[in-house]
This record gives sequence, C-alpha cells and structure tokens, in this order.
Amino acid sequence: MKLALLGGGGFRTPAIYRALADGSTRTQYDAVVLYDVDQARLDRIGAVLAGMNDQFGRSVALTATTDLDAAVDGADVVYCAVRVGGIAGRLLDETAALAEGVIGQETTGAGGITFALRTVPVVTEIAEVVARRAPAAVFINFTNPVGLVTEAIRRVLGDRAIGICDAPLALCRRVAAALGRDPADLWFDYFGINHLGWLRGVFEHGHDLLPRLLADEASLESFEEGRLFGAAWLRSIRMIPNEYLYYYDFATEALTAMQAGRVRAEFLQRQQESFYAGGGSPAAALRSWEASLAEREGSYMEEAWNGRDEELRNVAEARETGGYGRLSLDLVDALHGDGHEVLILNVANRSSLPFLDEEAVVEVPCVVGRGGIVPVAIGAVPMAAEARIVAVRAAERAAIEAALTRSRSLAVQALALHPLVPSVEVAGRILDRHLAAQPGLAETLR
Amino acid sequence: MKLALLGGGGFRTPAIYRALADGSTRTQYDAVVLYDVDQARLDRIGAVLAGMNDQFGRSVALTATTDLDAAVDGADVVYCAVRVGGIAGRLLDETAALAEGVIGQETTGAGGITFALRTVPVVTEIAEVVARRAPAAVFINFTNPVGLVTEAIRRVLGDRAIGICDAPLALCRRVAAALGRDPADLWFDYFGINHLGWLRGVFEHGHDLLPRLLADEASLESFEEGRLFGAAWLRSIRMIPNEYLYYYDFATEALTAMQAGRVRAEFLQRQQESFYAGGGSPAAALRSWEASLAEREGSYMEEAWNGRDEELRNVAEARETGGYGRLSLDLVDALHGDGHEVLILNVANRSSLPFLDEEAVVEVPCVVGRGGIVPVAIGAVPMAAEARIVAVRAAERAAIEAALTRSRSLAVQALALHPLVPSVEVAGRILDRHLAAQPGLAETLR
Amino acid sequence: MKLALLGGGGFRTPAIYRALADGSTRTQYDAVVLYDVDQARLDRIGAVLAGMNDQFGRSVALTATTDLDAAVDGADVVYCAVRVGGIAGRLLDETAALAEGVIGQETTGAGGITFALRTVPVVTEIAEVVARRAPAAVFINFTNPVGLVTEAIRRVLGDRAIGICDAPLALCRRVAAALGRDPADLWFDYFGINHLGWLRGVFEHGHDLLPRLLADEASLESFEEGRLFGAAWLRSIRMIPNEYLYYYDFATEALTAMQAGRVRAEFLQRQQESFYAGGGSPAAALRSWEASLAEREGSYMEEAWNGRDEELRNVAEARETGGYGRLSLDLVDALHGDGHEVLILNVANRSSLPFLDEEAVVEVPCVVGRGGIVPVAIGAVPMAAEARIVAVRAAERAAIEAALTRSRSLAVQALALHPLVPSVEVAGRILDRHLAAQPGLAETLR
Amino acid sequence: MKLALLGGGGFRTPAIYRALADGSTRTQYDAVVLYDVDQARLDRIGAVLAGMNDQFGRSVALTATTDLDAAVDGADVVYCAVRVGGIAGRLLDETAALAEGVIGQETTGAGGITFALRTVPVVTEIAEVVARRAPAAVFINFTNPVGLVTEAIRRVLGDRAIGICDAPLALCRRVAAALGRDPADLWFDYFGINHLGWLRGVFEHGHDLLPRLLADEASLESFEEGRLFGAAWLRSIRMIPNEYLYYYDFATEALTAMQAGRVRAEFLQRQQESFYAGGGSPAAALRSWEASLAEREGSYMEEAWNGRDEELRNVAEARETGGYGRLSLDLVDALHGDGHEVLILNVANRSSLPFLDEEAVVEVPCVVGRGGIVPVAIGAVPMAAEARIVAVRAAERAAIEAALTRSRSLAVQALALHPLVPSVEVAGRILDRHLAAQPGLAETLR
Repeated sequence: MKLALLGGGGFRTPAIYRALADGSTRTQYDAVVLYDVDQARLDRIGAVLAGMNDQFGRSVALTATTDLDAAVDGADVVYCAVRVGGIAGRLLDETAALAEGVIGQETTGAGGITFALRTVPVVTEIAEVVARRAPAAVFINFTNPVGLVTEAIRRVLGDRAIGICDAPLALCRRVAAALGRDPADLWFDYFGINHLGWLRGVFEHGHDLLPRLLADEASLESFEEGRLFGAAWLRSIRMIPNEYLYYYDFATEALTAMQAGRVRAEFLQRQQESFYAGGGSPAAALRSWEASLAEREGSYMEEAWNGRDEELRNVAEARETGGYGRLSLDLVDALHGDGHEVLILNVANRSSLPFLDEEAVVEVPCVVGRGGIVPVAIGAVPMAAEARIVAVRAAERAAIEAALTRSRSLAVQALALHPLVPSVEVAGRILDRHLAAQPGLAETLR
Repeated sequence: MKLALLGGGGFRTPAIYRALADGSTRTQYDAVVLYDVDQARLDRIGAVLAGMNDQFGRSVALTATTDLDAAVDGADVVYCAVRVGGIAGRLLDETAALAEGVIGQETTGAGGITFALRTVPVVTEIAEVVARRAPAAVFINFTNPVGLVTEAIRRVLGDRAIGICDAPLALCRRVAAALGRDPADLWFDYFGINHLGWLRGVFEHGHDLLPRLLADEASLESFEEGRLFGAAWLRSIRMIPNEYLYYYDFATEALTAMQAGRVRAEFLQRQQESFYAGGGSPAAALRSWEASLAEREGSYMEEAWNGRDEELRNVAEARETGGYGRLSLDLVDALHGDGHEVLILNVANRSSLPFLDEEAVVEVPCVVGRGGIVPVAIGAVPMAAEARIVAVRAAERAAIEAALTRSRSLAVQALALHPLVPSVEVAGRILDRHLAAQPGLAETLR
Repeated sequence: MKLALLGGGGFRTPAIYRALADGSTRTQYDAVVLYDVDQARLDRIGAVLAGMNDQFGRSVALTATTDLDAAVDGADVVYCAVRVGGIAGRLLDETAALAEGVIGQETTGAGGITFALRTVPVVTEIAEVVARRAPAAVFINFTNPVGLVTEAIRRVLGDRAIGICDAPLALCRRVAAALGRDPADLWFDYFGINHLGWLRGVFEHGHDLLPRLLADEASLESFEEGRLFGAAWLRSIRMIPNEYLYYYDFATEALTAMQAGRVRAEFLQRQQESFYAGGGSPAAALRSWEASLAEREGSYMEEAWNGRDEELRNVAEARETGGYGRLSLDLVDALHGDGHEVLILNVANRSSLPFLDEEAVVEVPCVVGRGGIVPVAIGAVPMAAEARIVAVRAAERAAIEAALTRSRSLAVQALALHPLVPSVEVAGRILDRHLAAQPGLAETLR
Repeated sequence: MKLALLGGGGFRTPAIYRALADGSTRTQYDAVVLYDVDQARLDRIGAVLAGMNDQFGRSVALTATTDLDAAVDGADVVYCAVRVGGIAGRLLDETAALAEGVIGQETTGAGGITFALRTVPVVTEIAEVVARRAPAAVFINFTNPVGLVTEAIRRVLGDRAIGICDAPLALCRRVAAALGRDPADLWFDYFGINHLGWLRGVFEHGHDLLPRLLADEASLESFEEGRLFGAAWLRSIRMIPNEYLYYYDFATEALTAMQAGRVRAEFLQRQQESFYAGGGSPAAALRSWEASLAEREGSYMEEAWNGRDEELRNVAEARETGGYGRLSLDLVDALHGDGHEVLILNVANRSSLPFLDEEAVVEVPCVVGRGGIVPVAIGAVPMAAEARIVAVRAAERAAIEAALTRSRSLAVQALALHPLVPSVEVAGRILDRHLAAQPGLAETLR
C-alpha cells in the first residue's frame, strides 16, 4: 500500500506518521511519500519521522519530494494536509478579521472564508493530478476548512474524497468519560457539518443517557464542553455542541478574549519558526517536535478560557494530542478490514440531514467497510441547528464559487453571508485587507 | 359589518380609520368600536376620528370602550393593534439591547423577542375572548412582531388569524416606480417571513424585469432599498431585500448609528406624550395627529441614513404614510368582494416555503377572495435566505414557548438563538435588564 | 392579437372559436389562423367557423394553412390541439390495450402512454418552431395527455407553455351546484396532475363546506362524481375525485364495461368520418357539427354507466359542452385583464405539491394576471393520492424519455410502470401491437 | 439472557432454535420459553427442539406455556412469530382474494391487508403485555406483514420493536454469488419497505459492481431474481428487485399461475396437519420437521415458475432454508457484541428514505451495536419505486387504523388503496368474504 502525504512538511505530519510507525495499524504500508512545496520543511519533518522509526524500531520506506505527480503516482491513499499560504496566511486570516472587530479564527467565520479563497484553487489542482495519477486512491482531506474543502474536492473526485476531523470523536470520548462509560458501548447521535455539530444523544442498548448527564451538574461540568458552554445553556438546548460552537454561542466573549490576548497564529508562527529552524539528530528533532506539540495543545482555544487559567490547564491536559493521525489511519484500516466500523466523517449527505441536498458534505456517523462509506440517517434536527448549518453551508458554497470563478463580488458575499460577519461593509473591508496583503489573490479575484 | 379596533387608543388607529372614513372601501361598516385599556387615549383618538368624520362628511357609528368582551361581541372583523407595555415597553426593548451592544429595534433582534415575551400572553387571552364572542370574525393582526404574534394567535383561532404589514407592498411599489411600471401590471415574486423577506423577481407577462433593474445603477439607487443596500450588494445577491434586512446585512452600521443617535422609542415617547396631552376641537386633534405622523415618518429608520440627511429626507418624502391602514381595509374588501385579489400577508405556510412546516406563519403573496386566503407556492429560495428565515422562526418559536410556559431558560434561548444576538451571556443580561424593569415579567418567568 | 390554432382542422376547434365569436371575450383577436396537416379537414372546420361568424354577426379575420411556420409567425397566442395519428391512432391506443385485458382509454393508462410516444416528438418540433417564430407567444396546450405533453413542451418553451383541461372546473361547478352555491363565492381546494386530481375542500369565507356535502347523501349523489364513485367511497376518502379516477378506483368495472361495449374511438371514428364527409353551406356545417357534438357528449365516459342508462342521460345533460374552449379564452383574457383570476391549470410545480420536484407539471389552482401565472401552495396531501400522482408522473416521464431518446426499453418501462398496466409482459405485448400497426413508430423506437 | 418465543408452537420455531442450539451464536441464552395458544402444537414443536438438543448435544433450559404474562416476564429478547387465525386464516386470505380475481398472497396485496386486520389487535395486546412485563426487552417481530405489524407494535414499544425478514439478505447473497464475490466484501445499497425493496447498487471499495452484472446476461440470469424478472427488465430499471416485486411487475402472470395451480396455503395446511398429527421420539419429530421444511422450500413462490419446473428446482435448491432464524440470532449477537454489524432490518425511517415520515417503518441497511440500531441514509430513489413504497405504506397504515378503530369503511379503503386491488367494489367483496368466514372479525368491524 502506497501512502502519499501532501503537505508532508507540515507540523502535523508526525502525528499521522506516529500512528503508522508505532505498529498499531492493521494496514501494511509499503511506501510513504511526503510531498511539500518547501524542501527545508520536508527535511526537518523527515528528521522527526526518522526519529520515530528509531523509537519504534521500524523501517517504513519513506521518501520526500517536491514533485506532486511523482508523489501521488499510483498511490492507494492520499492524505491532503496542505496549508496554502503557510502560517503567514493563517496569521492574515486571523488578524484581518480581528482588525475589523470580527472573530479571527482559522476555520470559523471570516478567517475560514478567506482561508478557503486561497485554498480551493490549489486543492482543486491537486485533486486533478490525483484523478490522473492515482485513479483508485482514497483521498483523505485534512485541509481546513475541512467541510468546504472536501466539498470542492468532491467536484473532481466524487465519493473517493473524504474529509476528516477528530473534534467530534474527542467530544464523544469526553462525554463517554463523564458518563463513566466505554465509548465502544455507546452510539453517539452526532450531526452537523465540520466544526458546526452537536451531540444530540448518547445511546446504550437503545436508551439515551444524555438526559442523565444533563441532570447531573457535576458530571456535566467535569469535561471541556460542559465547562465551556456551562450547564445552564446545555440544559436549555439539551445537546452538547462541538467546541467550535463556542465562537457562535459565545461570540462576544470569544472576540473580547481574542482582542485582549495574543492571536493564535502569531504564537504558532513564532513556535514553528523556532521548531523548523532547529537541527540535530533524528532523536533531537523528535524531542523538539514533541515539546512544540505539547505547548500548542496547552494553548488550544485559549480565547475560550480567558481568565480561567486553571480550567485551561485541566482541559488541555485532558486533550489527546494528534487524534486526527489516529483517526485517519483507523479510517484506512476500516476501509480494508473485516466487518464495519462507525466513524464520524465528512461525506456527501445523501439524505442524512434531510434539509440539505444530496451532494452537501456533512459530518455525521458513517459506516465504513470494504464496500465503502455510507452516512447514517439523522432525521430532523432542532430548527436553530438546521438554520446554522444551512447558513454556514451557504457561505461556504459562495466561497467555493468565488474561488473557482475568481469573483470579487461572490467573495464579499461569502464573507457577508457568514453568521459571524455582521455586515457587508465589514466583509468588504476584510477582503480588501487580504487583497492588499496577498498579491496573488488580488490578481485572480476580479 | 361590525369592526372592532383593539388597541384603538393607539397612535396608528386614525391611519386605519381614515381609509374607512374617506369612503374608498367597498365594504360597508355599520359599527366601529375602539377598545383600549386607557380611557384617556381612547378619548384623544376619538377626537381625531371625529375630525375625520367631519373632514369627509361621514357619520360612521363610532363607540369606544375599555370592556374587551363588549368590544368584540359579534364583530365581523377584529383588528388587533395593541401595544403591551406601551411606548415605555418599547423604549425598554430598544435600550436594554443597546446597553448590551446589540441592535435595539422594536421587531428585529433582541427587542422583538422581549416585546414578544410581554405580548404573547396578552394576545393569547384576547384571541380566546374573540373565539368565544365573535366566532365568525376575521382577526387581522398588526401587533408586532407580526409574524410571531400571528403564529401565537393562530394556535387559538386557526386560519381566521391573518397578520398584516405594509412593508412588502411599499417595497413592491417603489420597485415598480423605479421600473416605470404600474404595480397592477406586475407579479411581485416576494417571499419570507415578517420583516425578513426578499423580492426575487418582478414579472410582466411572465418575463422577469428585475435583471434589467439590477443592470441599471441609476434606477437601482433611485429608491429607498437601492440606496439603503447599495447597487453592488443587490447585484451580488440578485434580489431586493425588505428594508428590515438592513439590520442583518449592515448590522455594524445600524448599531453604530443607534449608539450615536437618539433611540427611536425615546423620540416617539416624547412625541406621543405631547400629542396625547393635547386637546381642542376634533379638527385641531386631527391636525395635531397629522403633524405628528409626518414627523414620525420623517425619521423612520433614521439609523440607516446616518450622516446622509438628504437621503433620509428624500426617502421619507417618498414614503406613503399609514399604508397599513389602506392594506387592512383592502384585505377586508377582498374577503367580501368579487373575484380575487393578491396581497402579501402573514398566513400559514402550507407548502409555500417548502423548507418550513405547514403551520409556520410566512409572509408571501396570497390569493384573497370570498372563499378565503391561500398562499402561492414559492419553491426553493437561495440557501442563505432559507437559513435566515429558519433561524429567526426558530428564535421566535422559542419566544412563544417561553411566554406560554413562563420559562426563563427558554426566554434566554429565544434571545440567544436570534442571529442578531451574539452570545448566550449577552442574551441573559438583556433578559435580566427586562426582569429588573418589568416586575410583571419577573413574576411570571421562572 | 394574433391567435394560431394548431390542429385547427380538429373537431374541437369550433368549441374554442365559438367562445371567441360570440363576443364574450375581453381580448380583441385581430387574426385567427388555423393550422393543420390536412387541408380537407381545415376546409370543413372553416365552414363551421364561417357559420358561427354568420350566427353571431362577427367577421374575425380567419385564415387556414398547412404551413406551420406561417401559422405561428408572430402569434401572440398559440393553441395546440393537434392529434398525432388522428382518430385511427386513438382507436389503436384503446384497442391494443383492451386486447391485452387492460383499460383502453385515450389519456389514462396504457392508451395515454402509447398516445404520448407518438405525440411527444411532434409537439417538441412544433414547440421549436414556436420558439423561433413567435418568441413572445403564450403556448396553450390541449393535446392529450395534457400534463405529460405540457411537461415535454416546457423543456423547449419554459413557463410560456401552459396545459389546459376543463375537467377540474366542471367538477368544481357541479359541486358548487350540489351545495347550492355560486362557484364565484367559493375556494376550490383542488390538487393533482392532469386527469388525476381530487377536490379536498370547498371553502366559503374560510369555512370548509365539503364535510356538509359528504354528510348529505342525497346531495352527494345528485351530481356526476357522486353517482360515479358512490357516497360510501367518497365519505371514506373525504375528497371528491376527478371523474378520471374512476379508471383507477373502479378499474374492474370500467374494464368490464369497455370489453362489453363499443370502444369510444370506434364510435368517434364513425361519427367524425360522417361529419367530415359532409358538405353544404356554413350554416349546414355548423348544424352538423353541433349535432355531432351533442351525440359525443351524450356518450362521454359511457363505460362508467354500464347498465345505468338513465344515469348516463342525466349526467350527460348536466355536462356543459366545450368547456375547454371557454376556459382557454378566459385564460387569455386573464393574462391581459385587470386584477387576478384563479384558474386550475397545468403549470410547473414550484412547491405547490411539495413531494414533486419544481419542474413537474401539476394541475392546481393558479393566480393569473398580467404579471404571469403562479400556482398556489397545496401542502401535504393524503399518502395514497401522493403515491398515485408520483406513480403516474414517473410513468409519464419515462414515456417522454422514451419518445425523445427513441428507446424501446424505456417505452416498455413507461407502460409497465403505469399503475393501470399489471405486468411487464403485458406492457411489452401492447407495445408490440403498436409497433406492428404503426410503421413510423417501429422505425424510431430502437 | 431469557428468550421468549411467541407463537412458539409454529412451524418456523425450530428454524430459529436450530441457530441457537448449534452453538453458533455468541450470545448465551439461559432460558428459552415457548408461548402459544395451542398446547398440542407446543408439545409437537417441543419434541422437535428436544431432537435438536440431542443432535447438537446441548441442554438449553426450555419451557413451554400458554400463559403470555409468564412467558415474557423479565425476558431480554422477545421473538414474535404468532400467526393469528392459523393456517386456516392464511387460506382464507389467499382464496378470498383469488375468488375475486386478485392475487392471493400472504403478505402482498389483499391477503396482506386482511391478514393485518386480524393480526394488529392481537399483536398490539401482546406489545402491551411486553411493555409491562419485560420493560427492557428487545422485541423482534417476524409476524407478517412484517413492516405493517412492526409499525403497529412501535406505537406501543417504540424503537425497541424491530421487524425482521431474510429476503433482502438472501437476495444480496445471491447477487454476491453471481458476481463471484464474498458478501463480506461488499456494500449492498438496498432500500424499501418489507417485501417491496430494490438492490440499487453493490459496492466494492466504493465502486459499483451492479452495472457489470447487468451487462453480463449469463451471470444475470444465473440466480433467482435474474431468472424471475428477466435480464431485459432488470437492465431497463437498473436495479434488482426483491422477489416479492414479482407480484407487482408480473401480476398478470402470477395471478394466472395461482388461478391454475393450487393455493399455497392449501398445500401448507395439508402439510402442517400431517406434521402436527405426527408423534414419536424427538429424533423422529426432528426428521419429520426437516422433511416438511424441505418440501415447503421446494415449492416456494411456485406461481412464479409456472411451467418452468426445472427453473423452480434450481432456484429452490439454491435457497438457504430458515435464514430468518440465523438472521434474528445474528441481530441479538450484534446488539450485544463488540463493534458494529450491518443488517437489513425493519426500523423507523428517521430520514433514510427522505420521502417518508420519520416514524414510517422502512427496510434498509442498519448499523447494529451495543449502542442500538440506526438506519443508513439512502437518499432519493427512482420515482416509480418511491411511488410504490408510498402507495403500499398508505394502504398498510389504513389497515392499522381500520384494525385499531374497528372501522369497516377504513378496511375497505385499506384494501382498495393497495396497488394490487383494482377496484373499490372488489375490495368490498373481498372484505365481505372475510366477514362471512370470520365471525370474530365481523363482530369488531363496524
């Protein structure tokens, strides 16, 4: 089995590779190719992976290249984790929004839309190369905003493109822990689109345990989402939102914290510069990467814990690092394993959420097996959740159209239609900041 | 035909009555009863109506009462224009929201929800009296927020309850004028819910004229909505929004203007106090009312024209005063006239907007005749419009439930779910301001 | 205003023309052109129309041609009443089905599908000529099966194509009479597709009178549909079906009667041969046509009254002859008149019947005015009615595809999918009979 | 784990028990209780089961009772395979329909409806006992018509009630064999309601193999459904129907064969009488049962193979006997096992088939695990399939209502609405035959 890791010079690559190197996958990988546009980053990450090979005593055939065609040629699995514009692009996504008084977040709100404007043309080209050079490959997309980008890739690759995010899984695990249950014993009735979903029920032998959790304030506030949203709100809506809903349900507080504190991309930029500038042995590179990762996770969603330092520390400690690496390899195992697994993935809707069209990418539990991947039927959801899903999918689709047709007017519309952007004027000014700072974008958006 | 005007002491009553007194209705009204909880206001408005009778040389049998049962007994038509909490309540709706950094508007956003919390129990009781005392009456609701309140009244009176608002009609007329057409020659493809709708097409002999208007910038910016939203935005979305969409599409600008200028309810409060304190002959009362009305209209949606005084003047001059009076009497005429009229009304959805349930109150073109009222089929609409309609209907339904079940938690939810309220915390603080200022509300919301 | 009557040599043409000649239309027709492929028929019908001109003292400019381009050139209104294959074709549609033990009816069941296979290619070509030569014309389709053929024409002409059938109007009038009401005072809540619809309610001032009619057996069985379906069945389903539902709800009885008696097309063939062979003055031609028409109507749906001769006589006497002529001219008047009319027409669904797609042609009440035509929203209907509508629309769409792609396999499918055809084998044998008898069809269906 | 087998004296009981006795289940059953209204039948079946215990060397604790409360008390799993009216009832269902010229089949068409009228009140009472005495039990329904009966039971027991039928599984296996694939490697895209479903695709690694099968006539006609429906029809509809679709797609042929040959229930009646009258040792009882079973299977759907004796023999040999026993025990294993299984079951729709409401019972692939059971999302299906599903569900719901409200009018409606009953008159006559033969039914249907 050949695996191509696109954006392989990225900081997240070792998280994926580790799950493969530690021998816990059922799938046998014969060749792993890292692809990136930046040779220096490939070298540095290559050192970390070599460190991992040493650590686990493995010798996976590992190559690195800046030639996309060669990287994907004949691949069985393509992982796409490219970051168009690099960390500097992310910094711009976050700061341009904040400068206009709007939440600056990589995937949610204005930042997600501007990220997409930059990213969609690039991933579309990548998908076209994959269509030619790896016609049987499964394409697993990590590139954010995952739902939007996966929908764009599906236009080229159809059902072979699957989007992946470990946030729903992590939520389900935390809820299972709060309930004192093994996740393997439960059905998680989770629904939504990427970074905009809710856990509506937790079933054990067909019986919903969520009401019990909502009734028990101590348990409810014992885990990240419980603390983040507060027992009163969760009891009111009777669901547990994905942590990214904090940016919607508590937008004022998130914005205030972002405006007061440091921008996440700034922190990451400094941190990554330091990591990538490092050198030394594979073992040293691995140690450096691990230290950086721990620091990253320790400040994840910092804005949500403004002034609640201890909460942040508790929550960070409870987080599992690099869960997406594990999840993506589990997906490949499930696609080739016996029987069926259930994973929450980003796939075409069919009629899972009956208020969306069949091609819309949704994030719901899916059955995965050698036959393929099929989402389960969710049925009607609370109107307010439906409204948000439709609103964000509308903005995201406008962003795809804007990127593919290079229309400035549609780009403003995509921003303005997003529920977290309060005005057409603000949308226009955010876009202008991007056009001023990204000459490439300015050239293409008419 | 007996007509009962509930909230008859209100400032808008003469606008309704004038359309009746000037003899232009086809329906013959034998008895008109004004009902209000405030005898002094009834007396003052009674004087204005007497002035109108003199002006037009009519002698409609006109009585006034503070006894609701007597007012509606045997009525054929009940107009409901009560304002629970009076202008002081409105002032609170607007200022409590603004104090929390949120748009303070009577019907749109937080103000509409808090207005509803106060209003729904009262209109529900009124509807129950009408069900008993006037079992065949048509119930025409003006009380804001019209869509939400009509949905609450429908739970008691069913299809007999119709909500009315002249904003869509006024928009259609302005667009017809910009196109140089008689509105009677056109089909206006308007859809939405109250204060949240769009004109999607303007058809003449089956041919859509809207693209032509969008292509002609001068015509497009010759009328209120064109100036309000700007040609670029209208061309981007290819629809003409109801003016109330300004609070959504340009929320930042509306909020800034509101925070800078005077609150509309403050202005209305001063103005109304002055009007109601006045005395004199019927003719003098009528003159005083007309002067006040003109002043009101001159500052309508002032916040949208911040720093654009001349625009505001132009727009105000172009507005027709008291259009809702005309519209409501046209509705009664159509219900009793030959043939069929088409009016944009607030009625049960059936399948007009296929993404809403059949009982949801929508604001769409309806066929009106002696048989009854039926909405036309709209079909699918742009996703972003669908999302907003569903979002606001969700918040409004939570408000109805909160008001009828007296649940504080649902009241916070209704506020927090509204797209113009940015946070659960903000929602809670707005509600707390209301509970502090309205002891009656505090007693009932658990 | 120029009117082109396609299939103008057909027997039904004078029924249309009479409504025009008697001066009761509001629209002024400056030129009327009859088009047909058969000059002899044009001459005979021309004589009848001349007789009508004499009768009413009118001199409408009337021409006849076998040149389609000339006929439609610059037309404002095109009526399409062509009968591809003539009465011989109809005879085949009816007898081939009967020979296989299946109801043989011109529009309903196997006969309608084979009629469509022959007709769709021809009307599609006609529509293309109209698109070129009369780009602003309204296209009013009478050609059966009206719903199916209108859906095919819409693929070329879009919303300009409207299908017309007077059966729903006639049903509504009979129900109004049974209720002792003027139809103008009522709203008829009728829904369906052509020849497959139901009257679900009859509203007066918003109050449904149908339950009262259902409760009164004498009134209920006083009119055609009441006698046809019987009080017990109507009370069970609580709706009044279109008379064509008899072929579904009483298929056994209809088939038995058809097998016992003469085939309608045979009767018509003899009758028409006699009429068209006639000669004489315009007045004589008119008399001959009127006599033939009366005889036709007297035996309409004879199979439904098997052994109930007096019933048949009563029902026939109560029928209004040539109602479709009146209805089509009323439609043109409404499209050019003041205000709005409500007519039951065959138009694109939008969301009128929410279980069909937006382009499906439905038969529902529509608002008609100078702006255009819009169907009303019907909402959910009983499941069994929904199922039949979807089933027949599925078969009809397969027939359109079969005709346009010339696929034998799809033609069998269209027949086999129809609820009145009991087997794939039977479907194949019916088609084989047609292929054997119609060499043209055999050449094109692969 | 306690298992209650309701209708345990029935002929199918040993098929279930064998799967349990042969030790191939993962679940450990501590107690098995047979319940029946007929002690003699319990004794005879008990002997067969004892024979199986001997055969496999097992000693499952096995009791039999005619006391329902005792049987279900504290049960973990309840299997319901009661046959109300016994084989005599089935004989009546089949012959009364045939006598009126309509297909006489136990579950499909008129026979299924009359079976339901007799059965629904009884299973509803059983469900109420289970609700009281076994509040945590899973209720697995085999009683036909499985979809209809399961929907009735769900009204009492909700999601705990699951319907089971092995026909879809058997179809999938035959298709896999024709493709030369192991079913475990494939995803079967099957959808429908019980005895009315289609296999729309067969996916291997996300790639549909069905087009390949359709293109290969020899493979296509190598298995039961291929021979039954013929390659031409399957290629036309591009799906493989459930064998029960034969009664719809080839109704004429099925009816002819039924009218010519013996009625299945007659055969079964004779056969069962002989089996139940038998005696002897457990081993002898088991041999007698096995011989009877083989004979039954050899004539299954005999009417579909009229005059094709060799085909029938081939098909019968390829059938797996008693697959429903295996499937039901697999279901229990999956509900208590590790991971997730996919089984085609009868459960509430949610949004699996988006054209049905959420409570409708559908037959689709479901994920089964310790958490519970969830159907997958199917999305839109061909219109003709949708129409049939809705039509039959409509008739079945009318039958449930008729049975529960004891309404003769609804019973006629349920029969008349079924696509396989051609007339209201015929429906009435079929019902009259039942009322005449079943005094109990006549007493309750008003």
